[in-house]
Amino acid sequence: MRAAELISTGSELLDGKTVSTHATTLARHLRPLGIPLLRDTTVPDDSAAIHTAVLEASRRVDLVFVSGGLGPTCDDLTREVMLALLGGELVYDDTALERIRRFCERSGRAFTEGRKRQALVLSQAEVIPNGVGAVPGELILQEGICYILLPGPPNEFNHLLENGIMARLASLQGDVPTNHERLFQVSMAEGDLVEALAAVDVPSDGVSFSYCLSEQGVEVRLNGVDGARVEEVARQVREVLGRQIYAEGRTTLEEVVGGLLQAQGATLATAESCTGGLLGDRITGVPGSSAYYLGGMIAYANEVKLNLLNVERDLIEQYGAVSAEVAGRMAENVRRCFNATYGMGITGIAGPGGGTERKPVGLVFVAVAKAGEVRVQRYVFGRERQQIKMISAHKALVLLRDMLLGG
Amino acid sequence: MRAAELISTGSELLDGKTVSTHATTLARHLRPLGIPLLRDTTVPDDSAAIHTAVLEASRRVDLVFVSGGLGPTCDDLTREVMLALLGGELVYDDTALERIRRFCERSGRAFTEGRKRQALVLSQAEVIPNGVGAVPGELILQEGICYILLPGPPNEFNHLLENGIMARLASLQGDVPTNHERLFQVSMAEGDLVEALAAVDVPSDGVSFSYCLSEQGVEVRLNGVDGARVEEVARQVREVLGRQIYAEGRTTLEEVVGGLLQAQGATLATAESCTGGLLGDRITGVPGSSAYYLGGMIAYANEVKLNLLNVERDLIEQYGAVSAEVAGRMAENVRRCFNATYGMGITGIAGPGGGTERKPVGLVFVAVAKAGEVRVQRYVFGRERQQIKMISAHKALVLLRDMLLGG
Repeated sequence: MRAAELISTGSELLDGKTVSTHATTLARHLRPLGIPLLRDTTVPDDSAAIHTAVLEASRRVDLVFVSGGLGPTCDDLTREVMLALLGGELVYDDTALERIRRFCERSGRAFTEGRKRQALVLSQAEVIPNGVGAVPGELILQEGICYILLPGPPNEFNHLLENGIMARLASLQGDVPTNHERLFQVSMAEGDLVEALAAVDVPSDGVSFSYCLSEQGVEVRLNGVDGARVEEVARQVREVLGRQIYAEGRTTLEEVVGGLLQAQGATLATAESCTGGLLGDRITGVPGSSAYYLGGMIAYANEVKLNLLNVERDLIEQYGAVSAEVAGRMAENVRRCFNATYGMGITGIAGPGGGTERKPVGLVFVAVAKAGEVRVQRYVFGRERQQIKMISAHKALVLLRDMLLGG
Repeated sequence: MRAAELISTGSELLDGKTVSTHATTLARHLRPLGIPLLRDTTVPDDSAAIHTAVLEASRRVDLVFVSGGLGPTCDDLTREVMLALLGGELVYDDTALERIRRFCERSGRAFTEGRKRQALVLSQAEVIPNGVGAVPGELILQEGICYILLPGPPNEFNHLLENGIMARLASLQGDVPTNHERLFQVSMAEGDLVEALAAVDVPSDGVSFSYCLSEQGVEVRLNGVDGARVEEVARQVREVLGRQIYAEGRTTLEEVVGGLLQAQGATLATAESCTGGLLGDRITGVPGSSAYYLGGMIAYANEVKLNLLNVERDLIEQYGAVSAEVAGRMAENVRRCFNATYGMGITGIAGPGGGTERKPVGLVFVAVAKAGEVRVQRYVFGRERQQIKMISAHKALVLLRDMLLGG
């Protein structure tokens, strides 16, 4: 296959309710096969719209993914649309049907026509069993085009890609000329980054740069077919950015920090106010984080800062709960109280309320403490509540990394 | 305007890095105007691809949004594509240019051509100033079609919609026949829900049903032009589902629970093991949550459960850290320790490691304690790590709601 497109079906994707992650997941799986995802078209649960989108895609590329619209309800239309486009007939897949029957049996649910419907597949399709849901995947090779139908729920979509679909595509694909890629995760403002790399980022020298912003910082991507050339440019990027590159590849900052903690046999505890547990959630998002993360205190109310984190009352009264002094003390005390090597503290004003002239919404102090040292940094983020929480947790992890690296 | 489409530009949206939220945000803003978002087409930073997508959209709808590709880097191509499509010329917007100049001055950055480029707009465009970034929004009315160009970063995209764009569209739109909608948030398996509503969900009776799954449960949406009819069906839905509807409209479960806590003048504390702070993060995602949420303990390591949450060692040794007994004790003790009205406890195995035959990955116990009562529920979720964390937090909030409602 040369190139792919995705048709994401589902009215919920176009009415403000659901954010679709399918294009992101799919692109990650297609990259190793050297198949670019050229377009993601999101259409509502409407037969005509799905029909047009699939037809248009099949004229541009030779690999067409269609997600969603395979469930039990009356607004699930993908099956019938594909039948109209590709011919054949709808037949029950025995494995899927049996799986649904057993599910109904186990859970005491009725084995209804609606539920059975989920086992209907195109007669000419190669069926890929779904290990985590009712709807199987379908792979149809027709007139040189490969159509792949997948259920909409993200866990089933991902499961089927990882268990059957990608392996099958790889076997269809055979050997492919690989595109050489280097990824750098950088914690730095995009503008500065672009300036810093101006000398290296030279269009049309065979290596393409792309920059992608996130609460994780900026991802710099190099692409090229000449591996040696890509390596050479990558070397220059490392030279220019140095330690501001916190990872190469898709590693997250919490994974990097976790690795450093483990390498040092160190442990970590967190004290969070405005982030409300988001920092702990990110740290524990890394499998195996229990090896170094002991836990934390969500000190949302001042009483908690006082009574459970033992932050002195006069410190809060003198400087305020949102202050460098309190952030530092939170980090120190949570470290002691959890008997950890490192302690982290975050206090700030996530808004929308609670801001003042002197202490505006977005003001955040992050702190990291280890034996004999406490570092605190002050930030003002001009963002909304959830973004302030996310970027605060990120900056705290950046500070922890610096200390772990002994910078 | 009758209908809208969105063209989301950005290679990072098709290479597995970034999940785009623009379609979701845009749809929410368009609904009150009665303008449906009919398609979201995501294309890479490629002039031809952007050109085709915009052209195709302009043939289907009369309102075309284009996001991204307006930044300072060489892979930002939207400006030039729109110039080629619509004619006119590129001119500097003085306000934007001045804003960029001041930004560079303040932050000691160079006022480079690249940074200036962000102030270039189409000469025929109505410019909407960007309060949070360098790139202004552009609105171009041409041959009966309205084109709107917006920067890609979500906070700027959202800011411009809320500050200028939507108001301008509303004025262009004038009065519109409203579509009547009712939303129900239900914490119930989709299959059961569909069965339960089978009698009410009658296609072609003027009220359309749609179902949308999420870690929040299922959202049931009724749509119709006949308000009275929609109301009648909504009444039947309420009758059938009763208390399993935890909210109507776009309210989240944490908002509902927050409202109930405030109404009862009650406070809340959380003790999390496998969710690692995610529950606290969700609770504190609600503005004003400090009125009832005191904070919590992230008891990731057993030592923390023992020493800081005072869970008895023999309880853990007898039943294991992942057990109904320990979950209940975590809820009880965090309640006491934070002196809160309600305490929540979550312990489980998020995986991928740590599962056994008797205690598989996905086994989770959620508990809620109040004076004189502790309730614990056992679940086994066949999902991956982050989903197990999310659905565990959700189930804990469902249990808390039940107790707050005195069920």
